[in-house]
Amino acid sequence: MLRVGHLPSGPRDSIADVTGVTVGHCTLNDGAIQTGVTVLRVHGQSHYLNKVPAAATVINGFGKSVGLMQLEELGVLETPVALTNTFSVSAVAHAQIRQSIHAHREIGRAWPTINPLVFECNDGYLNDIQAFAVTPDHYDLAHDCASEHFELGAVGAGRGMSCFGLKGGIGSASRIVSDRTVGALVLSNFGKAANLTIMGQRIAQQASGDAQAGTEPEKGSIIIILATDAPLDARQLRRLSVRACAGLARMGSNFGHGSGDIALALSTAYTVSHDRKQPGPAVAMLHEQELDPLFDAAAEATEQAIVSSLWWADTVRGRDGHVRTSLLQAYPDKF
Amino acid sequence: MLRVGHLPSGPRDSIADVTGVTVGHCTLNDGAIQTGVTVLRVHGQSHYLNKVPAAATVINGFGKSVGLMQLEELGVLETPVALTNTFSVSAVAHAQIRQSIHAHREIGRAWPTINPLVFECNDGYLNDIQAFAVTPDHYDLAHDCASEHFELGAVGAGRGMSCFGLKGGIGSASRIVSDRTVGALVLSNFGKAANLTIMGQRIAQQASGDAQAGTEPEKGSIIIILATDAPLDARQLRRLSVRACAGLARMGSNFGHGSGDIALALSTAYTVSHDRKQPGPAVAMLHEQELDPLFDAAAEATEQAIVSSLWWADTVRGRDGHVRTSLLQAYPDKF
Amino acid sequence: MLRVGHLPSGPRDSIADVTGVTVGHCTLNDGAIQTGVTVLRVHGQSHYLNKVPAAATVINGFGKSVGLMQLEELGVLETPVALTNTFSVSAVAHAQIRQSIHAHREIGRAWPTINPLVFECNDGYLNDIQAFAVTPDHYDLAHDCASEHFELGAVGAGRGMSCFGLKGGIGSASRIVSDRTVGALVLSNFGKAANLTIMGQRIAQQASGDAQAGTEPEKGSIIIILATDAPLDARQLRRLSVRACAGLARMGSNFGHGSGDIALALSTAYTVSHDRKQPGPAVAMLHEQELDPLFDAAAEATEQAIVSSLWWADTVRGRDGHVRTSLLQAYPDKF
Amino acid sequence: MLRVGHLPSGPRDSIADVTGVTVGHCTLNDGAIQTGVTVLRVHGQSHYLNKVPAAATVINGFGKSVGLMQLEELGVLETPVALTNTFSVSAVAHAQIRQSIHAHREIGRAWPTINPLVFECNDGYLNDIQAFAVTPDHYDLAHDCASEHFELGAVGAGRGMSCFGLKGGIGSASRIVSDRTVGALVLSNFGKAANLTIMGQRIAQQASGDAQAGTEPEKGSIIIILATDAPLDARQLRRLSVRACAGLARMGSNFGHGSGDIALALSTAYTVSHDRKQPGPAVAMLHEQELDPLFDAAAEATEQAIVSSLWWADTVRGRDGHVRTSLLQAYPDKF
Repeated sequence: MLRVGHLPSGPRDSIADVTGVTVGHCTLNDGAIQTGVTVLRVHGQSHYLNKVPAAATVINGFGKSVGLMQLEELGVLETPVALTNTFSVSAVAHAQIRQSIHAHREIGRAWPTINPLVFECNDGYLNDIQAFAVTPDHYDLAHDCASEHFELGAVGAGRGMSCFGLKGGIGSASRIVSDRTVGALVLSNFGKAANLTIMGQRIAQQASGDAQAGTEPEKGSIIIILATDAPLDARQLRRLSVRACAGLARMGSNFGHGSGDIALALSTAYTVSHDRKQPGPAVAMLHEQELDPLFDAAAEATEQAIVSSLWWADTVRGRDGHVRTSLLQAYPDKF
Repeated sequence: MLRVGHLPSGPRDSIADVTGVTVGHCTLNDGAIQTGVTVLRVHGQSHYLNKVPAAATVINGFGKSVGLMQLEELGVLETPVALTNTFSVSAVAHAQIRQSIHAHREIGRAWPTINPLVFECNDGYLNDIQAFAVTPDHYDLAHDCASEHFELGAVGAGRGMSCFGLKGGIGSASRIVSDRTVGALVLSNFGKAANLTIMGQRIAQQASGDAQAGTEPEKGSIIIILATDAPLDARQLRRLSVRACAGLARMGSNFGHGSGDIALALSTAYTVSHDRKQPGPAVAMLHEQELDPLFDAAAEATEQAIVSSLWWADTVRGRDGHVRTSLLQAYPDKF
Repeated sequence: MLRVGHLPSGPRDSIADVTGVTVGHCTLNDGAIQTGVTVLRVHGQSHYLNKVPAAATVINGFGKSVGLMQLEELGVLETPVALTNTFSVSAVAHAQIRQSIHAHREIGRAWPTINPLVFECNDGYLNDIQAFAVTPDHYDLAHDCASEHFELGAVGAGRGMSCFGLKGGIGSASRIVSDRTVGALVLSNFGKAANLTIMGQRIAQQASGDAQAGTEPEKGSIIIILATDAPLDARQLRRLSVRACAGLARMGSNFGHGSGDIALALSTAYTVSHDRKQPGPAVAMLHEQELDPLFDAAAEATEQAIVSSLWWADTVRGRDGHVRTSLLQAYPDKF
Repeated sequence: MLRVGHLPSGPRDSIADVTGVTVGHCTLNDGAIQTGVTVLRVHGQSHYLNKVPAAATVINGFGKSVGLMQLEELGVLETPVALTNTFSVSAVAHAQIRQSIHAHREIGRAWPTINPLVFECNDGYLNDIQAFAVTPDHYDLAHDCASEHFELGAVGAGRGMSCFGLKGGIGSASRIVSDRTVGALVLSNFGKAANLTIMGQRIAQQASGDAQAGTEPEKGSIIIILATDAPLDARQLRRLSVRACAGLARMGSNFGHGSGDIALALSTAYTVSHDRKQPGPAVAMLHEQELDPLFDAAAEATEQAIVSSLWWADTVRGRDGHVRTSLLQAYPDKF
């Protein structure tokens, strides 16, 4: 696959290079239904009992993701990270609640309620989003098959996504700096066709439609999940998440008005116990001056993960005969 | 009813004193099921086509309300405002999407998707929240019966809420300054029993349990909706919403760690058309120096609305024999 | 002195009850010049080498304080905290830079520059603020005399401040919860005369001018510094600082449009070394669920500190014959 | 000069293509003193009486600029925009206060105080920043010579700045979309030498020092001022300012830890009167869906302005024999 940037990758060039992180998909592929759910687990235990330090940046907030308010207040996530289509956020959030109270009957009674964390993009071009095809069970299926080995491209939540007028979807990458790993997972559904840029080069032919292209709005969104094994607190993770913007910009996005572009960053270096009687994690956070290499890795892993989402996504035909062509089919001679 | 503060009220002392605003409830009252939905409509048209300027302050973000990210980015709401219990946010959000695409088939296709706006508190003490009793149809029922005349207390989303160890729920009030009206609607579910303060006076007897009370955490949350007919833009509405904190503090809250305390402010002075071909509203916003009276009104209306929620809420018995006593029953000689 | 609230105080009922914290004043009292500088030191070492975890809440941002942007990004302060009048921020910020490069010649060369942290209120009613009477040397004087024992009232930066139409200035208090101390230092310069509220009671007589009072804008600002020995990170300190709003509201403020109301919270439990080769502080932060008592303490200490600023401030006569009367002189029979 | 991007420029390819905007410099060039002040005026009247709608994004907050807190609260600026070196912020802020009270004697008395707005970068490599060479008079000089015609490169605040290991400084550009102009002015002082990227191509030779370059931290900062004649409110201007990140990223920046990277956006389409008796501007803001072309223009103008700052900056020798070579001298065969 095409490789961007200068930093070394982990063995899989995937977010699963960050130890503990696994990803599972449930893909719905049936005529006008081209959608799904993707779940990222940070560790194998209950995320409610062992909360994960995390923070997010809303690059542009025209989106319907849920869970960010509590994340910002408390600096932890307490469920796996879920991705799906815009109109299925409710079904997936419900699944997270259902799963949590199944595991811990005191949630919402003696214990606080659970904060669903569900990100979305609108796959309505290929998928009949008004059919509400995703059910809570699809979340469970994606959750239960999470693995270090997972597919990329037109799978899971990425099944129906479009990117630069081509087929987008799930992409992943990793970069290693100073013995730390930064991994990225993206759900790519953004960009104007004319703006697709890979390694600094615009890919689209400067065709006759170019003038028109200048006025076509930038539609769609991207969700970017960054994971690192570096010990960072929520404030530092927010700083890390900001750097996803740089990778996104280099692909040709100006963060369109209509986008729900969000970057989440989390650390696997420690967890925060739900139990107040447990001593907090006495972890020395990384010195602030050590962050620059991680920032570089975050930007580059994001860029690579977007390329990966385009590279691995096959052509998909969906509702009303709509088709999104794969990058490699659209530009057979370019790569 | 008990009246707090110094400013004059509107004719109903209710958020419906702001012209156009209506409120509807759907109440579930059946043994262990003590919950419901409350819907606030800002006008009688489609909120998607005629978006309402609004902004919010997250006083404390330990909560699961949805819709604030897009609200902050775009400065408008595009659905009615819904209130319900924590685990029913998904059902109510789904209802808002369903209703919107029923009215506008292009949503999620040629048009952007819709941003559900659902606020919640946890009524798990009185209500079997794990039963997921609220369905999308309950939202429709509450929506369709919205009126300038609506009940207060243990109704709608307020059915199962607790406040200062007593029965809380839905409260409302209005204040008039410089010919402008500021109305408040609250869903009260917060406060330590020992801290209840009305017109500057602590209400609870300094009983033996007091020392214990000092270490009891402040549980629960409050949702505060402010509406005004003053022409304010989103930035100014955010400023207005901050003043709800002052009213809340005067009732005895320190914004407990576990609370999802949120204040939303909206203006009825103009709407923003979904149609980009419509000229924007050429409305002169209020001069910034004219805001102070509105700020005073927002704080006082909030305080009054909380008192109102306690005053009108009858005693409710719910799951596992749990009971929340009404303010007037708990303190028969105080008022 | 008048005592508000229910929690126990430290031995001095002062921010100096938080071990290590000292405060110094330089007071200018000469006819139309009624102003000064107050400096709060967190420890006896270089704050640049041993940075202090801190965070702030801007309750209302009509103000000219400097240093908050970097504080929010990095979560530490690297100078003592300075207070002065609005037009003297530049002189005091310059003094902080000068002092820092005197101590560390590499600042701004091999080392990063220094972030001045200067808070202000406008004392222009009593003080000829256009005279720019404060010089960098006044900062040095205040800095050098910082002590656990320091004066309150019309001293230092508080010399010319007004509060509820009376004489305001420097106040302080502390509260102890769960063996942790929370201290507050305020520079009070806010409030409408009619709104002054102490222990829930409005103090002003309901005089004939009351209707007029309703339209008088709330002028002026308050700076609130909270210090605690509890181990909190910057995110938790921001949460703590929010609770200062509750104490402020209980005194009668609605956070007027024209105010620069800011609350800063810092922890003395650890420092962050400037030297990247030093291991970070491996401190277990307080469990999030342990924060509620600290929140209560922060609100109550703020309220008490404001009362203290009024209690100890003597009547001051300043420019153009303007006078601010002390609380005790204005209401000789009330207390 | 090298032209980047695809959109048409205004006649000057400068921020002065936005009608009314003028820029003036005061340059200090004397041995170890290589620094200065740059002032951007939005119109020819008093900015205090005719306030300018504006908003900012702090991309990375390791910086000492002043004035952003009030800007965020009120959505207007009330002075010209000043740029200088880090240790001269105080002198320049003082100059803005002095100039304002000279023009309006009631400032700080009957009228509110003035909010200085001063941005900075650290020019300490070339300039003896510890000499505090900039005085308030230098601000006045820069202010008074503001013109539509102004120099670029190593002038004014840009005199001592470094960018990608080369000479940086003042750059400017404009882009025109849908009959609207977006102009950019930058103070460039950022970037690792190895990362300089122009039109997608890394410029630096992949020399032997490259491995080392990978660990060199990204030092320095950039200030980006965007101006547009489109009628946007403060919320929309904040959205516009975010897009500066995209242009910055394409030049090779990942927003280094140690940077104070800030983007300010302002509109010249209307002003907000200080006088509360004046009716507010009844301007129809641009429909939100019309923003995308402006976003593209903001990103591209930022990128072009950075290139311009490098292109026009001559080689400068400063303190201790330090030298920054111009782009064209460093890469004579590249352009």
